[in-house]
Amino acid sequence: MSTPRNEPARTGGVREHNLALVLRQVAQGSRTATPPSRADIAAATGLTRATVSSLVDVLVGAGLVEELAPVARTRAGRPATGLALRADAVSGVGLEVNVDYLAVCVVDLTGAVRHRRVVDGDQRTRTPATALRRVARLGARAIAGERATGRAVAGVTIALPGLVQAPHGPLRLAPNLGWRDVDVVGLLTREPTLAGLPVTIDNEADLAALAELYAGGAGGSTSFVHVSGEVGIGAGIVLDGRLYRGRHGWSGEIGHVAVRPDGPACRCGAGGCLEQYAGQEAILRAAGVPADAATSMGGSSAVDRIAGLARAGHPEVRAALAGAGAALGLVVAGAVNLLDVDTVVLGGIYAPLAEWIGPAVAAEVDRRVLGAPWAPVEVRASSVGPDAAVLGAARSVVQGVLDDPASWLTAA
Amino acid sequence: MSTPRNEPARTGGVREHNLALVLRQVAQGSRTATPPSRADIAAATGLTRATVSSLVDVLVGAGLVEELAPVARTRAGRPATGLALRADAVSGVGLEVNVDYLAVCVVDLTGAVRHRRVVDGDQRTRTPATALRRVARLGARAIAGERATGRAVAGVTIALPGLVQAPHGPLRLAPNLGWRDVDVVGLLTREPTLAGLPVTIDNEADLAALAELYAGGAGGSTSFVHVSGEVGIGAGIVLDGRLYRGRHGWSGEIGHVAVRPDGPACRCGAGGCLEQYAGQEAILRAAGVPADAATSMGGSSAVDRIAGLARAGHPEVRAALAGAGAALGLVVAGAVNLLDVDTVVLGGIYAPLAEWIGPAVAAEVDRRVLGAPWAPVEVRASSVGPDAAVLGAARSVVQGVLDDPASWLTAA
Repeated sequence: MSTPRNEPARTGGVREHNLALVLRQVAQGSRTATPPSRADIAAATGLTRATVSSLVDVLVGAGLVEELAPVARTRAGRPATGLALRADAVSGVGLEVNVDYLAVCVVDLTGAVRHRRVVDGDQRTRTPATALRRVARLGARAIAGERATGRAVAGVTIALPGLVQAPHGPLRLAPNLGWRDVDVVGLLTREPTLAGLPVTIDNEADLAALAELYAGGAGGSTSFVHVSGEVGIGAGIVLDGRLYRGRHGWSGEIGHVAVRPDGPACRCGAGGCLEQYAGQEAILRAAGVPADAATSMGGSSAVDRIAGLARAGHPEVRAALAGAGAALGLVVAGAVNLLDVDTVVLGGIYAPLAEWIGPAVAAEVDRRVLGAPWAPVEVRASSVGPDAAVLGAARSVVQGVLDDPASWLTAA
Repeated sequence: MSTPRNEPARTGGVREHNLALVLRQVAQGSRTATPPSRADIAAATGLTRATVSSLVDVLVGAGLVEELAPVARTRAGRPATGLALRADAVSGVGLEVNVDYLAVCVVDLTGAVRHRRVVDGDQRTRTPATALRRVARLGARAIAGERATGRAVAGVTIALPGLVQAPHGPLRLAPNLGWRDVDVVGLLTREPTLAGLPVTIDNEADLAALAELYAGGAGGSTSFVHVSGEVGIGAGIVLDGRLYRGRHGWSGEIGHVAVRPDGPACRCGAGGCLEQYAGQEAILRAAGVPADAATSMGGSSAVDRIAGLARAGHPEVRAALAGAGAALGLVVAGAVNLLDVDTVVLGGIYAPLAEWIGPAVAAEVDRRVLGAPWAPVEVRASSVGPDAAVLGAARSVVQGVLDDPASWLTAA
């Protein structure tokens, strides 16, 4: 966050840095009532007006920024020309393969969703090559749609549930898909439309946490754990406003933290893991809803059914959700004791079930987190919704352009 | 790690930054066979020779750096004057109150230990005021000794087992001492010798991890969890070469992560916490060594006795240590699944017991950490020894001088 400790101030890369700085000012201003002018950006950054103007011209020329109609300000002088992100020039594409669905999402440079599609279906019965071919086709169709309206696609990021060697792979292990050491990017780019684009892979729980962060969710917290419930359970850990990925990018494997040392066997090879108590299948089983029937309906329908039964007061379903919440709360409390974050976000299937799962999570957190009496931990449902991972994948593509427009200009 | 994202390059604070940069070069070079000259530092930092010379003069004048006898180099030209940290001018003092002992440690600017003392005794029977008065007197005597030899003391840091509002307090909670909301700095500075010095408080497990980091321990890893076993159990989390403190400074409360949801009651108010399975008293109890007798002997003697019995092959003691290791391993595996660190360091009482506890920890980690087949996690004993916390406290004082010599110059 400060100048690197072993180097004096540098001048190389200054223009690239300042280009990103100006674009960030425009992006932040795009969300306010008064889009910033060149003069506003100069005042906010300390850069000269001439430098700002030259950088803005580059960004306008690249289709990333647009000039709004001049608006007279209250003070004297020329009307100011507001600047905003241009929504109709560059898009980002997110894909997702999860246990019981495939998904695609397209966002524009402002992060607004232009297209999304979820196709239910059990991916465990397919080979990685088949599942990835299908999701690549969903992506190719979405990309063709963008190009037909004159937009450029900046890249594709795919969300996967497991140990991912981000950003280029391979996927090491996705226990619930039964995948191991899969060259995801190689298989995806067999699809010709994707072959010419930057394609990266990332962990679905990390991307879901990023979606929450980009959306300014988590109650505005910058230190939170975002827990994504699916058939598996993953977490994205945001510390001081940044996703914490870990030494190999494998942080947040909360689904394999133990609830009981001698608990039931898990697909990971160990036993007593959280997934066996609070994963989607465990909840369906405990609720007495046949897992096979539910899974063949697709995850979201099964969760809708559970939510409907809970809302109707079905005692077995409510007990199942409270039990899952207690196990989740036990493990989440441990994570908060370790990480000292102030907020826990319930995402994935936990978001629509938060009314019944949340109180049990909060009770364990209140009871077990040592610092809770001095600094209560907030437990809240995701503000993004159940498709946070694929949304986060798409948004991470455009975020890459916003963070480093110089590279995008070079590549485009 | 890079220039702050919302600010262009600044010039304010450059001299302070460069002063620290030069001192860091001297400190790093002090550990090598060829102490750096002014010219070496200019070459390494990109600063001009004139700037380096002027900054070195300031550091020499302040007693932080000394010029060694000129040594002829192989190449032509004047003999180079090597620069090194000066050991006999500035010291740092660490103090510690733990459940069954008080400690003091003094280090010089190079981190070498000049003095250390541990006084065994159960602190739970004393009020915070009494325990802190006693440890302050230990500190005052050590400070008097430093001053008698012409050294300046840069400050005092006290290590405490619990939730600490670093750096000035209060201590919120130390469950095993029975302390709650204690104004530690206020009580310590009733001792006149301490009243005129910068006095800070910090968590003992965090300081033990810092001692390991400063010593280049953890097998050279920069992403590790250091677990300190005492009557309580704490962890210090080092991510990418920096101690991760958390939102309130309360990270690493691993002793209150659950092993079993329905396990025995804990002093924290919850139940099934790791301390009840792998804390010092739990180990003594399981080993059949009377806890009262052991505690009145002082912690280190009790641990020596356990280690002796284990070495002699005592089956009950070995089973107790393996059991504690399995519980510790279960929780540590969860921490590694969350944090994706590559190394776990066993500190405090676990270091001398590592021969018997370590294998059980490693077995659980191998079994439960999802990424272990691709990136094995190393479990190793602390390289620092059982008084790592008080050593880390003393070293953190001199590290403060090394990190920010300008502030020390202003204060001195």
